[in-house]
Amino acid sequence: MTAPVSSLHTSTQSLRARLAPKLREFMPRESVLSAEENLRPYECDGLSAYRQIPGIVALPNNIEQASRILRLCHQEGVPVIARGAGTGLSGGALPLEQGLLLSLSKFNRILEIDPLNRTATVEPGVRNLAITEAAAPYGLYYAPDPSSQIACSIGGNVAENSGGVHCLKYGLTVHNVLGIKFLTIDGELISLGGKALDSPGYDLLALMNGSEGLLGVIVEITVKLLPKPERAQVVLAAFDDIKKAGDAVAAIIGSGFVPAGLEMMDNLAIRAAEDFVKVGYPVNAAAILLCELDGTHEEVSVGVKQIHDLLQKQGATEVRTAKTEAERAGMWAGRKAAFPAVGRLAPDYYCMDGTIPRKYLAQVLTQISAWSREYGLPVANVFHAGDGNLHPLILYDCNRPNELKNAEALGAKILELCVAVGGTITGEHGVGIEKINQMCVQFAQPELAQFHALKAAFDPKGLLNPGKAVPTLARCAEFGRMHVHGGKLKFPDIERF
Amino acid sequence: MTAPVSSLHTSTQSLRARLAPKLREFMPRESVLSAEENLRPYECDGLSAYRQIPGIVALPNNIEQASRILRLCHQEGVPVIARGAGTGLSGGALPLEQGLLLSLSKFNRILEIDPLNRTATVEPGVRNLAITEAAAPYGLYYAPDPSSQIACSIGGNVAENSGGVHCLKYGLTVHNVLGIKFLTIDGELISLGGKALDSPGYDLLALMNGSEGLLGVIVEITVKLLPKPERAQVVLAAFDDIKKAGDAVAAIIGSGFVPAGLEMMDNLAIRAAEDFVKVGYPVNAAAILLCELDGTHEEVSVGVKQIHDLLQKQGATEVRTAKTEAERAGMWAGRKAAFPAVGRLAPDYYCMDGTIPRKYLAQVLTQISAWSREYGLPVANVFHAGDGNLHPLILYDCNRPNELKNAEALGAKILELCVAVGGTITGEHGVGIEKINQMCVQFAQPELAQFHALKAAFDPKGLLNPGKAVPTLARCAEFGRMHVHGGKLKFPDIERF
Repeated sequence: MTAPVSSLHTSTQSLRARLAPKLREFMPRESVLSAEENLRPYECDGLSAYRQIPGIVALPNNIEQASRILRLCHQEGVPVIARGAGTGLSGGALPLEQGLLLSLSKFNRILEIDPLNRTATVEPGVRNLAITEAAAPYGLYYAPDPSSQIACSIGGNVAENSGGVHCLKYGLTVHNVLGIKFLTIDGELISLGGKALDSPGYDLLALMNGSEGLLGVIVEITVKLLPKPERAQVVLAAFDDIKKAGDAVAAIIGSGFVPAGLEMMDNLAIRAAEDFVKVGYPVNAAAILLCELDGTHEEVSVGVKQIHDLLQKQGATEVRTAKTEAERAGMWAGRKAAFPAVGRLAPDYYCMDGTIPRKYLAQVLTQISAWSREYGLPVANVFHAGDGNLHPLILYDCNRPNELKNAEALGAKILELCVAVGGTITGEHGVGIEKINQMCVQFAQPELAQFHALKAAFDPKGLLNPGKAVPTLARCAEFGRMHVHGGKLKFPDIERF
Repeated sequence: MTAPVSSLHTSTQSLRARLAPKLREFMPRESVLSAEENLRPYECDGLSAYRQIPGIVALPNNIEQASRILRLCHQEGVPVIARGAGTGLSGGALPLEQGLLLSLSKFNRILEIDPLNRTATVEPGVRNLAITEAAAPYGLYYAPDPSSQIACSIGGNVAENSGGVHCLKYGLTVHNVLGIKFLTIDGELISLGGKALDSPGYDLLALMNGSEGLLGVIVEITVKLLPKPERAQVVLAAFDDIKKAGDAVAAIIGSGFVPAGLEMMDNLAIRAAEDFVKVGYPVNAAAILLCELDGTHEEVSVGVKQIHDLLQKQGATEVRTAKTEAERAGMWAGRKAAFPAVGRLAPDYYCMDGTIPRKYLAQVLTQISAWSREYGLPVANVFHAGDGNLHPLILYDCNRPNELKNAEALGAKILELCVAVGGTITGEHGVGIEKINQMCVQFAQPELAQFHALKAAFDPKGLLNPGKAVPTLARCAEFGRMHVHGGKLKFPDIERF
């Protein structure tokens, strides 16, 4: 169990007065922020429904400084919340009023590109896309591509085990990270993995991926680089029925294709994207699929023809293949702009992130639209269909009474449905503060107890990002879901599945 | 730190007398072995240089029995060594005189093949190849293929994170396991992962892979199945200089190919294999490469042509492409028989398993042959060149004075060289009892301390497979290598690298 941090109950002022001078003993003044106006930019990450001004912010410039910050916080019993680019969608970097926010924005150096071993070694503050840009001269790139790849940092990607359009073929972040260095809460530097295959000992490297800042602070990352495929081509298929689109996804995967990307958008998302980017999406379709193949010229041209025929057999009302690179870029532009585009339809939207076994796609989407009517809240679906990673966008207006509450309730119901059909409550966004209650649905008491035992092995005082990712057993007891076990949830609405 | 198991120092007889009746309360007589002659078959695994008759052997038939065995051992303070098929090469299943050996041989049921989600759910005692056989009717297969795949169990594969010829393209076991159920030392059942993408919470699933039976006992496994490639073809290239062969490997990978397999054999291995299987290997070559491509017909035929040209450009004295499936099988037959074939050259051989960054292949092989002359022990090299996973086979005769000692000394030197160039002491065989000292070279004190803290979070009394995989800090202190840090080893012989 995470130990309660007793020394927290002092006022914010005294926290600042206590820490600031000690931090400035080994850091330049401007790297320690304690004035309200300087703290404001750190009050939230991509999940802006939750906000909290941090007690104090430290921006270390190197491992030595980061290590001393952690040692100090460990001595003083002050919680530490690490933050990358702040693009996370589950509130993983939400500050604590009585905590120190550790920004890794100055850890932004690309340390090495090794073309022969096909690896890049970088600091955690480096942007996802910057790695691919640095590798491009060697014909290499970094595969995982979250929608936020222009802005998000690789350290945040590791902390959340981020995915993206291409993780169907190339894997999540954990499958593309070869080595890391991280600092323990007491400032000890630990090196894991490297450029060689595998590693003996327990797989702490994989464990750090997706640990959401609760086990340590990552200060260096070595990732796998891949050769840029000779060619990529996209096929767009329109369907008059979302079930047909879901079945087409199953047919593509079932017939052995591993597309570089296989995305689905429903009608609301299609119309929103088309209004926004004008790329000629079929606005009357109930759903569209975007299927990208990459590889050698031969492989792609043959595959595209087979996918084209297969989609027609599956009852697509229209199938288009991008003739030019510009056309291909256009097809993706709509998908990539879908979130902001949908965002224009309502004052607020809430982006969910559940995964389900592919075979339940059609039923789950049908259930979601039924609930959408029931709650009177429009839901747009834009998601990674190939790996069953749903992103329902719930539209609401937080100025209307109860709409935020209802949106959250609908979101919770959708996530619990994902668990009920054997899926999970997060595909790539993490649990953070957002899905802490659903963790009680996802896991039973023995798993949660093991999580807490493991956390204590890294952070006995529970100072690293407390209150995120893994709920206390007490919280789950209150939430009243401890009887539920992954996939075994009794869920009235889905007994028919 | 792993706690010392004080209650061990009772005699083996009394252990049997104490445990046997209690075990038979919930297990049939024949499932509890305590007579010397019945225990003998369990005295060693694939690393037969180490032997120990177990205190007692239990063969549970289901999860309930396994759970009660663990609860009993936990109460009684008796160590538990889990064993699959006993094909391991690092002594991971070596019994303890005062311990219980938990054989999972009766956990041999294939529980489900799910063609739509492309998964297989099996018990840990199922043979690796049996999964592929069960999936074949659906055109699917399980990718990781250790040389022992006819005999080795999937539970053992997970415990050791096994690889194989095809893991260059398809990943190690950890990349192909989607879910597991395991029992903690106190008999609690824990479920991790499943059929859906990713999973929230800490990645205990990856952590269990390669944990060598020190964290829990795996009782159910869900693995990813892949569609059988349309076609596979092999190219064999001969070289008159091992350095040229090493450079050719770098050239293939560097030019962006991801072969399904890329294997190297040196002259001693080539001759041994040819004597054994008569497949027409070029017996005068200094080294041969076997490069397999798989995928669609188009992709393979184009790729094979490019590989063929590339290998000639790299100075191959001969390049052959398998014309028929029979010819392809023949080329692999030599590779697959290489270990037993080399085994015929000397009374005993010692199989190493280090990994190195690809760019050091040529230098490391040159250094190994220099040491081979120095020690007067022939070394045959047969290995996964594509991912830098070496398998030097050291030939010796344990009846000659000191030869076993010298073979172990040479082996240790080779592993330390792997670490010195930034590699690891095991690619796929695990640490077990064999490489426990080299772990002191691989890791520094902070990493080892974190390993022990993590172990204690799962197994506070240190009852699961004690003495394997992770050395105590005291042991490393004696071994005198605590000053060494992964890759930073000062190693006189390789200063030139």
